Amino acid sequence: MAAQKLRFMYSGIRVRDLDRSLAFYSGLGFRVHKRGQMEHGGIWVHLKLPGQPHRLELNYYAPGNPHYEPVRKGTEFDHFGFRVSDVQAWADRAEKAGGKIVLRIVETHENLAYVEDPDGVWIEFFGPPARKRRKPA
Amino acid sequence: MAAQKLRFMYSGIRVRDLDRSLAFYSGLGFRVHKRGQMEHGGIWVHLKLPGQPHRLELNYYAPGNPHYEPVRKGTEFDHFGFRVSDVQAWADRAEKAGGKIVLRIVETHENLAYVEDPDGVWIEFFGPPARKRRKPA
Repeated sequence: MAAQKLRFMYSGIRVRDLDRSLAFYSGLGFRVHKRGQMEHGGIWVHLKLPGQPHRLELNYYAPGNPHYEPVRKGTEFDHFGFRVSDVQAWADRAEKAGGKIVLRIVETHENLAYVEDPDGVWIEFFGPPARKRRKPA
Repeated sequence: MAAQKLRFMYSGIRVRDLDRSLAFYSGLGFRVHKRGQMEHGGIWVHLKLPGQPHRLELNYYAPGNPHYEPVRKGTEFDHFGFRVSDVQAWADRAEKAGGKIVLRIVETHENLAYVEDPDGVWIEFFGPPARKRRKPA
């Protein structure tokens, strides 16, 4: 058996409108790392955040493609988690990029926000509660 | 706005039997990094492959939990991708760990294998075609 190295390289989702999804994830800071076409015509795009190895894969299957399926919300996937310094700011930014804020949770030790991407994929932003600004003297 | 650092920390799935999923992903080399309980009783476990930052999150919601949902195969998630040195060996290993091999593709430039984890989450192993063994002289 060859050397047993397993590299957790990407997490792949399906998108219904590639441009829309690229606009959304670009708005979060992802950049296109690589893209290609599958033999049956499907398109994949690998996105990366600068300096981070794990990729987000967008898969697009046009209607008529053998892998095309209508949108159906499942329960096997839960969400992607992003640690951020300012949860509120990132939720707002994601909304401006085309997402939908579905839940904001403010706790004493942590803030959370859940945003749906344009295809309904849940994204969690979590981070420290916003520091209170000092009043000017 | 605070410094805009976004860290793609984990990809989270839902599991129906935590022990079964832990056995499966341990069989692939993942190790438990951290675990905790949510306020509503759900359990999360973060798994990591040694030396790799991106975590796989397992979320377990018992029947009766407000987040519990029956298994429903969706189309928003596609699959996790793992680069390996020996695709066949990893597919077999995943099967022994409790997965189900659903597809093997042998191409001249790359081998692929798709395995369903115990909850039906698709995993892709991809890597170079197995080198032919030299016949003993």
